[in-house]
Amino acid sequence: MAYKESTIEGRNAVLEAFRSGRTIDRLYILDGCQDGPVMTIKREAKKQDTQVRYVARERLDQLSETGKHQGVIAVSAAYEYAEVEDLLAAAERKGEAPFLILLDNIEDPHNLGAIIRTANLAGAHGVIIPKDRAVGLTATVARTSAGALNYTPVARVTNLARTIEDLKKKGLWFVCADMGGTVMYRLDLKGPIGLVIGSEGQGVGRLVRESCDMAAAIPMKGDIDSLNASVAAGVLAYEIVRQRFM
Amino acid sequence: MAYKESTIEGRNAVLEAFRSGRTIDRLYILDGCQDGPVMTIKREAKKQDTQVRYVARERLDQLSETGKHQGVIAVSAAYEYAEVEDLLAAAERKGEAPFLILLDNIEDPHNLGAIIRTANLAGAHGVIIPKDRAVGLTATVARTSAGALNYTPVARVTNLARTIEDLKKKGLWFVCADMGGTVMYRLDLKGPIGLVIGSEGQGVGRLVRESCDMAAAIPMKGDIDSLNASVAAGVLAYEIVRQRFM
Repeated sequence: MAYKESTIEGRNAVLEAFRSGRTIDRLYILDGCQDGPVMTIKREAKKQDTQVRYVARERLDQLSETGKHQGVIAVSAAYEYAEVEDLLAAAERKGEAPFLILLDNIEDPHNLGAIIRTANLAGAHGVIIPKDRAVGLTATVARTSAGALNYTPVARVTNLARTIEDLKKKGLWFVCADMGGTVMYRLDLKGPIGLVIGSEGQGVGRLVRESCDMAAAIPMKGDIDSLNASVAAGVLAYEIVRQRFM
Repeated sequence: MAYKESTIEGRNAVLEAFRSGRTIDRLYILDGCQDGPVMTIKREAKKQDTQVRYVARERLDQLSETGKHQGVIAVSAAYEYAEVEDLLAAAERKGEAPFLILLDNIEDPHNLGAIIRTANLAGAHGVIIPKDRAVGLTATVARTSAGALNYTPVARVTNLARTIEDLKKKGLWFVCADMGGTVMYRLDLKGPIGLVIGSEGQGVGRLVRESCDMAAAIPMKGDIDSLNASVAAGVLAYEIVRQRFM
């Protein structure tokens, strides 16, 4: 997975970058600069929890690529998305039956990062996320993935249900996490498989759930409703590991 | 688990509460109040990520118990810790062999909250944390536990290794999470058990590890070092569930 870092310079460009939702890793501001446009940029940075560093003019000049920083330089990080085909190719290269993790609208970047981390260690060949309404590969996701984003490809698709239908034609079986499903230990989770995890609030959406071949339940022995989404993904992914490798 | 909410009123008392590390859930400030002491309190609130609400004098008077709020009222949340004996009693009441989760210096409140949530749903009878160096039952822990803190007792002990030795005399077996251990599927994890999870950075400490009867490894098929601590706790707790109930 390619990681690129790029700088954005000048007040309008930086403000625009924040407002477009682009992930800014770090913001450099000329020390002592307090005028209106800079304060607006600082407010945007605060909203996004971006690290702000106050530096001397010499440092800004050194960081600048254009020479026209106007006292502000933002450093933006971006991971490149893979294609679904790349994930299948990764499985083929390893001579393994595909094992993919699909996320239906996970919104919390910490959960997405932790799930990519789990995907890596459980031996999954990649993660698929939908384009809309879900969190993308932000700096927080990269950080909480603990480096896994450098190894485990993440593909983004327009329609998760359609992607599932396409992959079923290629021989994959799909199992979704569903409290009303069959206890996971009783399902056959070997072979080429896609594990579908829903959002914390709503679980797996109806259309996506109906596309799946099986629904797997984690046994719940307690008083509350559900596990944290990344813990649930971990428990289900490792049930697949157990059945595959033990 | 008892949940108590208390108000702290007046500038010195509120500032002192922040500085002593007490968890403040919400801070009410008289709207328009901008003097030095109030600004100092706001800075402390920001450091701790406390919600600040600016309210009219009437609202403050209404919230006040002492009538001497000086424009600031903090609301502090505190869960009461259980005793280790309470955890064993909970198991006995249910007629089940004890299943406890022990945390060796988990520092991230999100991880602690998620693990208490997992403990509840995996049917563990309680969680044990050490008094020093670890995070306590803060408002963030309560929130990320998704309500589990109201059901699953948490005990705090001075010396985790000594608590393990005491509990071994009462018939519990202890298994610690350890990458160098035996693959978890091959261990016998039935019967009265304590699962010990270490901190993300350092794993389980030496003394605690040496007190354990077994070391369990989660199979790692990837490129990075380790799972998120709360995911690892979930995977191991559910291997215990599988062996106990299936």
